[in-house]
Amino acid sequence: MLLPELKLRRDKIRALMAQEGIDAALITCNANLIYTFGRVVSGYLYLPLNAPARLFVKRPSTLEGEHISLIRKPEQLPDLLQECDLPIPHKLMLEGDELPYGEYRRLEACFPDTEVVPCGTTLIRQARSVKTEIEIELFRRSGVAHAKAYSQIPSVYKAGMTDLQFSIEVERLMRLEGCLGIFRVFGRSMEIFMGSVLAGDNAAVPSPYDFALGGKGLDPSLPGGVSGSLLLPGQSVMVDLGGNFYGYMCDMSRVYSIGKLPDEAYAAHQACLDVQAAVAVVVKPGVQCEDLYALAIETVSKAGFADYFMGVEQKAKFIGHGIGLEINEAPVIAPRMKQELEQGMVFALEPKIVLPNIGPVGIENSWVVTMDGVEKLTNCPEEIVEL
Amino acid sequence: MLLPELKLRRDKIRALMAQEGIDAALITCNANLIYTFGRVVSGYLYLPLNAPARLFVKRPSTLEGEHISLIRKPEQLPDLLQECDLPIPHKLMLEGDELPYGEYRRLEACFPDTEVVPCGTTLIRQARSVKTEIEIELFRRSGVAHAKAYSQIPSVYKAGMTDLQFSIEVERLMRLEGCLGIFRVFGRSMEIFMGSVLAGDNAAVPSPYDFALGGKGLDPSLPGGVSGSLLLPGQSVMVDLGGNFYGYMCDMSRVYSIGKLPDEAYAAHQACLDVQAAVAVVVKPGVQCEDLYALAIETVSKAGFADYFMGVEQKAKFIGHGIGLEINEAPVIAPRMKQELEQGMVFALEPKIVLPNIGPVGIENSWVVTMDGVEKLTNCPEEIVEL
Repeated sequence: MLLPELKLRRDKIRALMAQEGIDAALITCNANLIYTFGRVVSGYLYLPLNAPARLFVKRPSTLEGEHISLIRKPEQLPDLLQECDLPIPHKLMLEGDELPYGEYRRLEACFPDTEVVPCGTTLIRQARSVKTEIEIELFRRSGVAHAKAYSQIPSVYKAGMTDLQFSIEVERLMRLEGCLGIFRVFGRSMEIFMGSVLAGDNAAVPSPYDFALGGKGLDPSLPGGVSGSLLLPGQSVMVDLGGNFYGYMCDMSRVYSIGKLPDEAYAAHQACLDVQAAVAVVVKPGVQCEDLYALAIETVSKAGFADYFMGVEQKAKFIGHGIGLEINEAPVIAPRMKQELEQGMVFALEPKIVLPNIGPVGIENSWVVTMDGVEKLTNCPEEIVEL
Repeated sequence: MLLPELKLRRDKIRALMAQEGIDAALITCNANLIYTFGRVVSGYLYLPLNAPARLFVKRPSTLEGEHISLIRKPEQLPDLLQECDLPIPHKLMLEGDELPYGEYRRLEACFPDTEVVPCGTTLIRQARSVKTEIEIELFRRSGVAHAKAYSQIPSVYKAGMTDLQFSIEVERLMRLEGCLGIFRVFGRSMEIFMGSVLAGDNAAVPSPYDFALGGKGLDPSLPGGVSGSLLLPGQSVMVDLGGNFYGYMCDMSRVYSIGKLPDEAYAAHQACLDVQAAVAVVVKPGVQCEDLYALAIETVSKAGFADYFMGVEQKAKFIGHGIGLEINEAPVIAPRMKQELEQGMVFALEPKIVLPNIGPVGIENSWVVTMDGVEKLTNCPEEIVEL
């Protein structure tokens, strides 16, 4: 990553720090290090408000550079700052919603005369919610690779497959197109392997995870996604894998059918496409997220599918979410979310309906907010494809 | 999971709580919920010292049972405890090394008259380090599935593959044998996708992660593992994937060669097998971990390979680690680790050597400590297999 890009990102964080009277940030969580340093390291990026950032690195111990020093343990930080002629900060922010309590307290104790505040996660996520041109370009490339993998999905289906076997072949397609595999989520309780492939009534099984749909899973230790059931004629199957090709989590769902589906399924699918079209046409900077959600509910209600929208027994309470280095960034397109869209925000919009005895239908694409509208990043046919 | 098994596990935690004068635990991190409740939920397992455990669940909202109540937010906990005739605890432990700082503080604030202590992570990890009979049986089954996937590896190699293409086919074999894919690691900074496949000099590239070996990775956002390079004649390639088949992380490495390797590689590989044999013969309850490490260093030094043992520029400072619901549990087989092995501990032993211009050699198996020795869980030929 080039320094001007990193400086741009760091300055976005600094602008938010300045508003809070914070004169330094200590950044050590992986997604935030990728954002501010361009790669994962084991160590700390120290970001002063009014001086260049400095990396204190544990591993890899071979990393070298102008503003890079080795560190063994965080208790060395005050001395290392002094060696770099950096003052001890008056108000230091840590990543309070990501650092474990024990680690936070240990870092806090390294700065006994400093006011240490936990808002680092909130501020950095706010900075990250509006992407730079380079980030948007990485998302564009991800969208192309993601769509290329999905376009090959019909070729890997074989009659008599289980949902798991089908998922494995789709995962392989994604990996062959360059997907890194790892699925980064914000929040300690959210776990998933590459994404979810949901067929038939398994799509309606409530899970502990706050993803759009659930699934029984293969084991109680990971109760989400495929259940190992046979794919049966008359069922729909939705592929919703995370497209992490360059560190950025592209998000995209497409629906396939085993033979023909009942007419109701095509009508419900069309209702979701209509929601997508209705939302996409009004998205632009300044639009409030809750209004997009209300528009989606209104559109799907008119079509008569509100009861099955975003799940059956346990419904997701959103129709879209910001994406970036993690799959769940700001903004969230949900009720009571007054946040306004800004140019450069990237989000997934995923109107979905789960029909009893058939399965999931609907659509998900990744979008970037432009100066006066929206650009679709995941371009690939959107109808239900018969396998 | 049957209740007697869950009660056995909870009582192991209770015994440690009693020693610290703790009268209740609030458990909410996924691995600890799998351990104490048998599955992942979004919610809280409240574990009193002297009363049955109680689950307060957010998602899935359809979960029902005798000791299960619904909850929307943690601030309801005191009232919900009262409804269950459970007293407010005097000393409550939270998972201080896993809960984010913000979430810990929020839970702490729900119990203003309680002494809240952060040692939950340490105590539960201690309880988890000695496996029950049922956990050991799940590990045995994992070992069989893991070995079955590895036995098919030669069949997926094709000349001219990159390390990535080879890895993708091995990942697929693992998934087809039932691997859940997800790789659970303790500690916020450790990330990996299924495991690592390291060929040639890529195995010596230092990474930020504290795994045994490194690798450049495909992208700076995940700098570990395969680099996308061609597999070349005269190179070795080590497959080290996590075998999470039933929630338990089995660990196993095997080495393959593209054509024949120089004699030095076979000698180094034999040195690692000798380390494994030397350690395995002395493992039994009561042996100290640091003594096993010293024995490994002594054995490999005599063979003349100390300089390349466990990496080249950046060396791993351990030769083995406990495994369980996470890949890095107690005990750690490393210098200054005076912890004694106990019957029922399960660990991976991974003596490895990285040879410049050739690649990684060595072995990794998963083992359970028995009454008077050790049992190997991952049985599969251990020589270097020519592809």
